[in-house]
Amino acid sequence: MSRIDGRTAEQLRPVTIQRNWSKHAEGSVLVSFGDTKVFCTASVTEGVPRWRRGSGEGWVTAEYAMLPRATNTRGDREAVRGKIGGRTHEISRLIGRSLRSVVDFKALGENTIVLDCDVLQADGGTRTAAITGAYVALADAVAWCHERKLIRAKAQPLTGTVAAISVGIVDGVPLTDLCYEEDVRAETDMNVVCTGDGRFVEVQGTAEGEPFSRDELNSLLDLAVAGCAQLDGAQRQALAAP
Amino acid sequence: MSRIDGRTAEQLRPVTIQRNWSKHAEGSVLVSFGDTKVFCTASVTEGVPRWRRGSGEGWVTAEYAMLPRATNTRGDREAVRGKIGGRTHEISRLIGRSLRSVVDFKALGENTIVLDCDVLQADGGTRTAAITGAYVALADAVAWCHERKLIRAKAQPLTGTVAAISVGIVDGVPLTDLCYEEDVRAETDMNVVCTGDGRFVEVQGTAEGEPFSRDELNSLLDLAVAGCAQLDGAQRQALAAP
Amino acid sequence: MSRIDGRTAEQLRPVTIQRNWSKHAEGSVLVSFGDTKVFCTASVTEGVPRWRRGSGEGWVTAEYAMLPRATNTRGDREAVRGKIGGRTHEISRLIGRSLRSVVDFKALGENTIVLDCDVLQADGGTRTAAITGAYVALADAVAWCHERKLIRAKAQPLTGTVAAISVGIVDGVPLTDLCYEEDVRAETDMNVVCTGDGRFVEVQGTAEGEPFSRDELNSLLDLAVAGCAQLDGAQRQALAAP
Amino acid sequence: MSRIDGRTAEQLRPVTIQRNWSKHAEGSVLVSFGDTKVFCTASVTEGVPRWRRGSGEGWVTAEYAMLPRATNTRGDREAVRGKIGGRTHEISRLIGRSLRSVVDFKALGENTIVLDCDVLQADGGTRTAAITGAYVALADAVAWCHERKLIRAKAQPLTGTVAAISVGIVDGVPLTDLCYEEDVRAETDMNVVCTGDGRFVEVQGTAEGEPFSRDELNSLLDLAVAGCAQLDGAQRQALAAP
Amino acid sequence: MSRIDGRTAEQLRPVTIQRNWSKHAEGSVLVSFGDTKVFCTASVTEGVPRWRRGSGEGWVTAEYAMLPRATNTRGDREAVRGKIGGRTHEISRLIGRSLRSVVDFKALGENTIVLDCDVLQADGGTRTAAITGAYVALADAVAWCHERKLIRAKAQPLTGTVAAISVGIVDGVPLTDLCYEEDVRAETDMNVVCTGDGRFVEVQGTAEGEPFSRDELNSLLDLAVAGCAQLDGAQRQALAAP
Amino acid sequence: MSRIDGRTAEQLRPVTIQRNWSKHAEGSVLVSFGDTKVFCTASVTEGVPRWRRGSGEGWVTAEYAMLPRATNTRGDREAVRGKIGGRTHEISRLIGRSLRSVVDFKALGENTIVLDCDVLQADGGTRTAAITGAYVALADAVAWCHERKLIRAKAQPLTGTVAAISVGIVDGVPLTDLCYEEDVRAETDMNVVCTGDGRFVEVQGTAEGEPFSRDELNSLLDLAVAGCAQLDGAQRQALAAP
Repeated sequence: MSRIDGRTAEQLRPVTIQRNWSKHAEGSVLVSFGDTKVFCTASVTEGVPRWRRGSGEGWVTAEYAMLPRATNTRGDREAVRGKIGGRTHEISRLIGRSLRSVVDFKALGENTIVLDCDVLQADGGTRTAAITGAYVALADAVAWCHERKLIRAKAQPLTGTVAAISVGIVDGVPLTDLCYEEDVRAETDMNVVCTGDGRFVEVQGTAEGEPFSRDELNSLLDLAVAGCAQLDGAQRQALAAP
Repeated sequence: MSRIDGRTAEQLRPVTIQRNWSKHAEGSVLVSFGDTKVFCTASVTEGVPRWRRGSGEGWVTAEYAMLPRATNTRGDREAVRGKIGGRTHEISRLIGRSLRSVVDFKALGENTIVLDCDVLQADGGTRTAAITGAYVALADAVAWCHERKLIRAKAQPLTGTVAAISVGIVDGVPLTDLCYEEDVRAETDMNVVCTGDGRFVEVQGTAEGEPFSRDELNSLLDLAVAGCAQLDGAQRQALAAP
Repeated sequence: MSRIDGRTAEQLRPVTIQRNWSKHAEGSVLVSFGDTKVFCTASVTEGVPRWRRGSGEGWVTAEYAMLPRATNTRGDREAVRGKIGGRTHEISRLIGRSLRSVVDFKALGENTIVLDCDVLQADGGTRTAAITGAYVALADAVAWCHERKLIRAKAQPLTGTVAAISVGIVDGVPLTDLCYEEDVRAETDMNVVCTGDGRFVEVQGTAEGEPFSRDELNSLLDLAVAGCAQLDGAQRQALAAP
Repeated sequence: MSRIDGRTAEQLRPVTIQRNWSKHAEGSVLVSFGDTKVFCTASVTEGVPRWRRGSGEGWVTAEYAMLPRATNTRGDREAVRGKIGGRTHEISRLIGRSLRSVVDFKALGENTIVLDCDVLQADGGTRTAAITGAYVALADAVAWCHERKLIRAKAQPLTGTVAAISVGIVDGVPLTDLCYEEDVRAETDMNVVCTGDGRFVEVQGTAEGEPFSRDELNSLLDLAVAGCAQLDGAQRQALAAP
Repeated sequence: MSRIDGRTAEQLRPVTIQRNWSKHAEGSVLVSFGDTKVFCTASVTEGVPRWRRGSGEGWVTAEYAMLPRATNTRGDREAVRGKIGGRTHEISRLIGRSLRSVVDFKALGENTIVLDCDVLQADGGTRTAAITGAYVALADAVAWCHERKLIRAKAQPLTGTVAAISVGIVDGVPLTDLCYEEDVRAETDMNVVCTGDGRFVEVQGTAEGEPFSRDELNSLLDLAVAGCAQLDGAQRQALAAP
Repeated sequence: MSRIDGRTAEQLRPVTIQRNWSKHAEGSVLVSFGDTKVFCTASVTEGVPRWRRGSGEGWVTAEYAMLPRATNTRGDREAVRGKIGGRTHEISRLIGRSLRSVVDFKALGENTIVLDCDVLQADGGTRTAAITGAYVALADAVAWCHERKLIRAKAQPLTGTVAAISVGIVDGVPLTDLCYEEDVRAETDMNVVCTGDGRFVEVQGTAEGEPFSRDELNSLLDLAVAGCAQLDGAQRQALAAP
């Protein structure tokens, strides 16, 4: 059985990671998972938020947003409505936690890196693309800090790599990297964030319809670990370029 | 090795579920997991939100909040700050999704039930206590609808039961139903929502420190399934009382 | 003629004042006037707001809120609407002023005590129950400060006691401690805050229908003074317990 | 003993009531109590708020605000801060209630009148000047409705007149119509709203320092009733002009 | 051809500039352009916003607002809606820029002057009346600073004068100082801010209907320069009074 | 004398207009003026805002925003701050007015087109690039409406073309299409919106330092008209592609 777009169950959509997409940001990446395109920038500032001052430790945080017409029908701007929606909050927090899981804040020193992930076009998996792209922008920003000597020469603020994939059960079949149409029809939807060594940073599974069994959960985790490993490769390849 | 409060790794804190705690609400429960106390009310209104009108289907949603001094140090009121925080949004959404997973909206008809979960005292596990208590309030509200004939006599809006527990890894040991002190020290923290038949509605695991392995994930899931089964018993017992 | 609930005109509803209702707050009270139940916590922090720093004087303030389903029909959460309503503002200010009337800020020193009064169940008189309960929570918080030596040993921050009662004219008859049904039907509604020695801190009378005469005003004040004296007794009794 | 500005204890400041101060509003008044100047407009719209539709009854409401530099030091604009402060809310509600006390909503029919009271210059007593001036603007707006035949020919939407005065105890002496300097020093501050026949619509007394006795309360009420009677005269005189 | 109100194309409406309209503000002006009336106050505070501290330079800013019933139909209060509208923002910024164009911030020293321009009655040209009146209030505030020795004796913070006029094309004819009815019908609308020596500070022309030609633009600029020269005279006359 | 980037005074930066940059929007353009890149989408919805219903006329509006790191230092998200800044409001309104100047709303029928202009990278002239790109997106959206028969076959909703350029005086020299560094140093800054036939839709000139003379204004207008003519060519060329 083949999927809507002809993929096999365990096949990711084409992934591209373009670095240096902005002339201003210390790290910037346009990441695409198929038709999902997210623009990730990493902004470095010296100093940390008030509650962390004097600790000798840095901070990493993230903000996620969708452009109003990233989706099939236009959504209101959150700035115009005057408040951040629950979904936006939730995803921003997820991205921030995921990246912090591979940061050694002592090594970063009292510097702050903000990851902005703005979805230019959405077709499912925007949060997982955002995490995957933001990691690369973060790595570039850390390199920039090294060049500017904002970080001690031997300090290694990144303790590993991190990537994320969505998996789900559609018509009873576990699939990886769901596009929007699959996502809408999924009975179970799971976002998994893994480090490059195959361990878990986040596992967020939700039954959209029927509750799911332990076996189904296991199948989804298998798909996710395999998908993240592929994304890890794509990240390394992107970062290996000059 | 025994825990801070003397429990074994797989032992829940004392659970109490007091029904009819309010004279106004169609369902109302004071639930406690140890020192965590959450007041859950279910409010029935005829009709549904605009986007669902004419569908013949009902709606269930939830709002979670903490009283300012539910915690050890006083937090600002979100109403005073003028916006809902990300954590509050996230938990409200989780509770709503969890309860909707056991609702047949056709059977509910065009009625709306809002679950308000207000934390009176917090000591870890507030969201899991909220889900567990809110289910009982929801069941009472559904019964109230039946008495008032808002629902067809044979309709069964509840397709199952649902409860939730937090589990985590503290000092390398998987523990169930973390209290606040354990939660703060946990390397991995997971909230699991199960139906009464032992299937999963939500699995949300987060590495607070080190990433976690597949084995650790499995241990946590085992604990969670066992914990939810116990909570399911407590719910049934509470609902069996007149 | 007897009232809806069988009371005489000058009879209060049953009053209960339960102390130590929370394990976190420095003072905490669940107060009930009949079916009206308000949870009052007193939170101590060292230091004072910016505009008072260096004055050597402390500060006491209050915030009042209703849980969404404290009333017969569910009200929107003010946090969700993103702003505090006029009624909430007004009552919070009233509670704060009432308590400050019995505080010697020099004796309190540069400490701040915040009284949170959250209505768990409403049946008329929520603001008067809140003031009455908050005074007891405040007294416990002051005692806590003494134990922790945040206040000088001989300092007496409380210069008196304070309690409040609602009175009103229903069907031409002055009544004390109105329940919700009486309150709705009252032609005149008055909230009176008295010190333990029978003097006035606040008198807020409002004609809901016909304007009221000087004689009617005098009858209401008589009822209020008598009611507050009874509440003063209930407060003393509660505080006398260990 | 004479007052700061040479008045006797029971003497009002000079009161002026200028009608037709705006070419747009259906009623408009510039009222001054000494240096306190409030611009009151009454705006008529056909129809009523949603919750009152079909009742055959009208509605009257009020909004109070201060210009930023109405006071001695500039205050932030509430529009810029993005929220209405508690004091503003409280006074707006007081003005609305006071005016509604003399309105027969059946006679008004399904029309809405909004009273805007904007303080151009403040020197104590802004809320009482606002009520006194707004009544005159309201009377003009009702006359305008009659001319336009928005109201039935014989209907009398105004059932009486209403005016307001502040009174207080300064250095132990009861005084009427406090100016700002007196207000700041007052031990007790009371705002009283009376109808033209000398009955009470609102009595709001607050101990700013020491609690006040029943005797003091009585003295203040005497002063207030006398002051309102004088204001009633000023209103009648203003309305008698063409 | 004569205009709605009988003026010639190049004739301004009657202009009045009343100084000292408030007892509190350091400068205060009630300016009228025909039926448009704007109350302008200048508030001096020592010190500057954070971003300018230590620069030795002062700051001037402005806030514009309309009273709700300044216009023919009542508008909602921006404070009640909880946000400043786009038009208000735009005009506040325009007024601030216009006044800053004639200020030498070094000469002003680290003082801040805020111009509040509140429209009491609107009949077209509110922003131009506001700029013209605010300049006079600013001049009075600068004089006040000199008297209080907040500014060095020889420092001249005002480097020139500034006034503003609206011009437009109505039924094909260029007209100056549009009243509301003309403004609504104008095909092109332009606001021009000039210094007393006839140079431009702001030129803001907008085609409301048909685009406008270079010739039309030139005719409008001619009218505007002539109008501003007249306003400059009115300002000088007002300031020449004691 | 050559400019920072080697251009002559009247030379535009390289202009690119890429159509169909999004798969969802009815019109979508990535426009760049040198390093300034703006993503413009046109979203069509059937129906119009409430105030326009039943008129038979359509509506066109615009929203402008900057991504947080579009600029050299990161700016706060307006959604996070909870309000739209004055500059954003002002530019959104300018873009909307500019596009409406070439729309025949009768021909558009009761359809609404929203133009979203999100700045991905800023280097001066973001509002002029936005207008220029949004026009092309609008044209594509109109064509889409024709294909879907939302517009009558012979109706021509676009009555002309529109483009915009910034011009300014830097070191006394009038220059066209200012980049950020020139913009910061400009004594006078002007944004001009022209139709394809060389007439004006908007002229917004501001003296940032010294006021500007009529001669300087004329030079700037000459540059602007020439620049817009070039942009008109670029738009036509882009739209001529399939």
